[in-house]
Amino acid sequence: MEIAPGPLLKMIESPADVKQLSREQLHQLCDELRQYIIDVVSVHGGHFGASLGVVELSVALHYIYNTPYDQLVWDVGHQAYGHKILTGRKDNFSSNRKYNGLSGFPKRSESEYDTFGVGHSSTSISAALGMAIAARHKGENRKSVAVIGDGSMTAGMAFEAMNHAGVTDADMLIILNDNNMSIDPNVGALREYLTDISTSHTYNRLKDDIWKALGKLPVGKKFTRDMASKLEHSVKGFVNKSSNLFEALKLRYFGPIDGHNITKLVDTLQDLKKIPGPKILHIITVKGKGYSLAEKDQTKWHAPGLFDKITGEIYKKTFETKQPPKYQDVFGHTIIELAEKNKNIFGITPAMPSGSSLKFMMEQMPDRAIDVGICEQHAVTLSAGMATQGLKVFCNIYSSFMQRAYDQVVHDVAIQKLPVIFCLDRAGLVGEDGPTHHGAYDIPYFRCIPHMVISAPMNESELRNLMYTAQLETNNHPFVIRYPRGEGVMPDWKTPFEEITIGKGRKLKDGDDIAILTLGHPGNFATTAIRELKTEGLNPAHYDMRFAKPLDEALLHEVFKKYAKVLTVEDGTIVGGMGSAVLEFMAQHNYHATVKMLGIPDRLVEHGSLKELHRECGYDAAGIAQTVREMMKDKVTVGTLLQ
Amino acid sequence: MEIAPGPLLKMIESPADVKQLSREQLHQLCDELRQYIIDVVSVHGGHFGASLGVVELSVALHYIYNTPYDQLVWDVGHQAYGHKILTGRKDNFSSNRKYNGLSGFPKRSESEYDTFGVGHSSTSISAALGMAIAARHKGENRKSVAVIGDGSMTAGMAFEAMNHAGVTDADMLIILNDNNMSIDPNVGALREYLTDISTSHTYNRLKDDIWKALGKLPVGKKFTRDMASKLEHSVKGFVNKSSNLFEALKLRYFGPIDGHNITKLVDTLQDLKKIPGPKILHIITVKGKGYSLAEKDQTKWHAPGLFDKITGEIYKKTFETKQPPKYQDVFGHTIIELAEKNKNIFGITPAMPSGSSLKFMMEQMPDRAIDVGICEQHAVTLSAGMATQGLKVFCNIYSSFMQRAYDQVVHDVAIQKLPVIFCLDRAGLVGEDGPTHHGAYDIPYFRCIPHMVISAPMNESELRNLMYTAQLETNNHPFVIRYPRGEGVMPDWKTPFEEITIGKGRKLKDGDDIAILTLGHPGNFATTAIRELKTEGLNPAHYDMRFAKPLDEALLHEVFKKYAKVLTVEDGTIVGGMGSAVLEFMAQHNYHATVKMLGIPDRLVEHGSLKELHRECGYDAAGIAQTVREMMKDKVTVGTLLQ
Repeated sequence: MEIAPGPLLKMIESPADVKQLSREQLHQLCDELRQYIIDVVSVHGGHFGASLGVVELSVALHYIYNTPYDQLVWDVGHQAYGHKILTGRKDNFSSNRKYNGLSGFPKRSESEYDTFGVGHSSTSISAALGMAIAARHKGENRKSVAVIGDGSMTAGMAFEAMNHAGVTDADMLIILNDNNMSIDPNVGALREYLTDISTSHTYNRLKDDIWKALGKLPVGKKFTRDMASKLEHSVKGFVNKSSNLFEALKLRYFGPIDGHNITKLVDTLQDLKKIPGPKILHIITVKGKGYSLAEKDQTKWHAPGLFDKITGEIYKKTFETKQPPKYQDVFGHTIIELAEKNKNIFGITPAMPSGSSLKFMMEQMPDRAIDVGICEQHAVTLSAGMATQGLKVFCNIYSSFMQRAYDQVVHDVAIQKLPVIFCLDRAGLVGEDGPTHHGAYDIPYFRCIPHMVISAPMNESELRNLMYTAQLETNNHPFVIRYPRGEGVMPDWKTPFEEITIGKGRKLKDGDDIAILTLGHPGNFATTAIRELKTEGLNPAHYDMRFAKPLDEALLHEVFKKYAKVLTVEDGTIVGGMGSAVLEFMAQHNYHATVKMLGIPDRLVEHGSLKELHRECGYDAAGIAQTVREMMKDKVTVGTLLQ
Repeated sequence: MEIAPGPLLKMIESPADVKQLSREQLHQLCDELRQYIIDVVSVHGGHFGASLGVVELSVALHYIYNTPYDQLVWDVGHQAYGHKILTGRKDNFSSNRKYNGLSGFPKRSESEYDTFGVGHSSTSISAALGMAIAARHKGENRKSVAVIGDGSMTAGMAFEAMNHAGVTDADMLIILNDNNMSIDPNVGALREYLTDISTSHTYNRLKDDIWKALGKLPVGKKFTRDMASKLEHSVKGFVNKSSNLFEALKLRYFGPIDGHNITKLVDTLQDLKKIPGPKILHIITVKGKGYSLAEKDQTKWHAPGLFDKITGEIYKKTFETKQPPKYQDVFGHTIIELAEKNKNIFGITPAMPSGSSLKFMMEQMPDRAIDVGICEQHAVTLSAGMATQGLKVFCNIYSSFMQRAYDQVVHDVAIQKLPVIFCLDRAGLVGEDGPTHHGAYDIPYFRCIPHMVISAPMNESELRNLMYTAQLETNNHPFVIRYPRGEGVMPDWKTPFEEITIGKGRKLKDGDDIAILTLGHPGNFATTAIRELKTEGLNPAHYDMRFAKPLDEALLHEVFKKYAKVLTVEDGTIVGGMGSAVLEFMAQHNYHATVKMLGIPDRLVEHGSLKELHRECGYDAAGIAQTVREMMKDKVTVGTLLQ
């Protein structure tokens, strides 16, 4: 189905076309841009509320700034759909997040207007500051603008960047897009502070006065930052609330202003563009603006899937038979079951209550399930502090976000051998979110750390049993449970709890000549492959390793004594992964089997559906079957290549 | 030499003894504690200035708080010597930082008074908050106190923790130990802000007034946080500067007070102990307090080595012949040489100008060498932003601190394939700083990331050539150069620059039967071992791999075609390291040699001298020689263990 943009938007091939419009036309452009996002996302899917919230800002930025010469950095990038549509990607925007289509995030290789690739939060100020420092060094007068949400501001990295920016003379504008939301409602003291300053009339009046005064001054070389600063300070003396958090960090603070008032935005940006130095503009927006259902339930409409744009009905898949649940929901319900029995259990999430399904526990046991905001570092060390007091903390962090707290796992948890339980959600390929979100690296990055237990359930029942095992007093290790995004395989998933011996794998079936060792959910792909191979007279053995660390050495001795060919399969990078651990075991014990390893290859895997990506990487059922066939054809026996 | 504590300190076996003292005696205890630290550190070495700066605070905390029931968390821990001496470790304090001796940092396994192991900065607030939340959940009235320096406050993690603490009712005190220093002088906007509020008379007067008012109120169950808050707010209305950064984060702010006034400290802590909720006490201290030379040159006296406590002469090793330089200084001088030729070169350090030797460039080219403060995350993404504009940034971060910026390397640098140059100082074992500081994990944690180049120089000349190669326009990869703490091997190190082909190793010598593959500095240990083995009639080949990624595949084909036995040696974890990469190559190409791997084992390696630790791990020259002997004795040939 062809989705047509409105008449004005239709003519926008690049920001140069936006600049040709009159101020009055900008209103129409905003309306059409908003409608186009609704039209496309309702049919093709994607992130929704965030981009609706910055329609006016996107138009205003490209109207005022000389993009791409001026550098625009969108934090996280969920909100950059309008930007993409205005910068030459309107006509293929319906390929957004699809295999071989546009990325759901700004991406340098996609467009010169995407100055910095994003996906994880809170990087924009650092990146824009780097660009501003470079511009200054090179004697270029290009501007740098970072657009960052109030949710992303809770991550320490944003604070680090502001702390540095404040003492530079970098020509940079930070736009704080304050909508009171992350994916779930924003939390923390900063959020309360922003709400406070947004509603402080005295303060706003002062700011307006100063703003008007500034507006009447000649702006140019003679109007330096110092002069502006002096003027502002002289006015400040007359009111009570004269300081704010950002100015404490030496950033000039402007706002708050209504981020949906395109005229005000354009005027403000026009003026700010002339004021040198690091500065912050606080705008107030509504996530989902212009689509009333999305304004009302902002979490649900962050990325709603496909929907009827007229009725607002979100389409659900319908099934004839009972379906397996998402691993996320198994986690979310199981932690409650365990917490009801063990009063020491806590749940921690850094800003992913809905995504992780910890929200169920937050509703039912609000004192024992905490959303700490976008701050993985704090989440991990907080969990460590709690563990020193005997609490059993399930710290649920997506695999790719755990990269943000790597040192905290090493330093605060593993070195102290504290039994924190890390539920690594979205481990393995994640699909449409692409390379920034694939949980590709956690096996190697955790496997090298002493004291770590790294496990992966092959199905829902295994997930429950690993969670049960991890919270027992008998476990005194940091305990990682990695599981993928999406559905498992067991419609009847609520099995009774059974303790699993740490480091113990399972033999799923015996076989001839070749053994397949799998870790986690891809074990199911191997099961399918084995079924297929059986029809061809091939009979591989199948072992579910369960643990990437510690390895089940007894199981491996059995395997290497019996099989000359071994295939390892995992939902993570081949480099340094579980297969690599098996090779280390072989070297240690002088085994010399032929080993092939399947998993995520040593290159970026782009976005697409999980099926497409598993196929591309060659570890879906077909890929496993094909590799077994090739290994069985290969008559080279052990040692013959050694000359 | 026996070092005797003063008469009062001599009697202090635990904080219970401190509590028996009169307030007057506390002055004497402080004097004796300070003198004892001077006496021991001058003779046995260690960190110096930080502990002198918190003598009064250490005494006051143990005097007022019921340690270890109340939980005391020292951030970083350089400053915890006084705490260690007061908590039962006085008599073996001279074993501090020595092999099998006391740790230079608080450590849970060492004492129940060390409630949380530290070493890296900015973890204390998160940990103490976790403890406070646990205490509340368990119905215990224990207090949690985090002591954190203004330097550590620049790391975003501290902000994340405060942002969370401010919206809890956790009974926690944060003590901001403001001495204007990290190891080098502190930088950033926060530092300027702290200086400002420390010297604001109006503000201080207000605070004093409130404080006095609070002092007269009955404190107990009826005096709630709300009441205190209301009172303070009512007074606040009367002055201009009514808000501060910490209160913006909903933390009650007290101070600043003189951290060397023991009476004032004791009184203040006594009162604060009764005020529930999260709060912050700002104390002003002088790093090196009481030792005038240390007060004057605080960076030099952070950890001066051995010195004459009377004259202040810092002992230097004297040598008869010219010695090789530290790798750090080779970096520090070489970057200037390169930057003089290439105007796009920048140097970035997160708070380690002296440690990394970037200080030379900061002095000579202040616009192009930046200390961004303790904030590795920002340092990496700032470098990425600069790289998008064509700058060649040498981002110098210690290997263990790089763990703090892992996601930024993956997400902001590697995924975008930006040619940022990471100089990983202190890679491998570091010696006396122990497990929190060993640079053990970087090869596995970087090796799994696509696009990374990971190199390690065997000597000074190689370091120079790798730095030269990394900054050439022909390099379009993120480029890691890992090198150890301390001296290299080349007294005449200033060799002319030569480009190194990326991914190309070196054959150092041919041999018989066995090949040794080394990475980086331990190549020199292998050279020594080979010399020794020659006298026994053994003749191993020696290859310097130079790159852990990409591997030199041509070289490896040569090795595995010629040698049935291969020994890999690296200054990093065996798990997932360079040896593991070699095994992956073998699996891919069906080689079946017998491989042994030397490096850091899969357990914590404690502190000690580098010599002691290399020996313990078995990859010093003796360990390498011994392994070669064993491998050569072992007559098991390829494949015989395969049944």
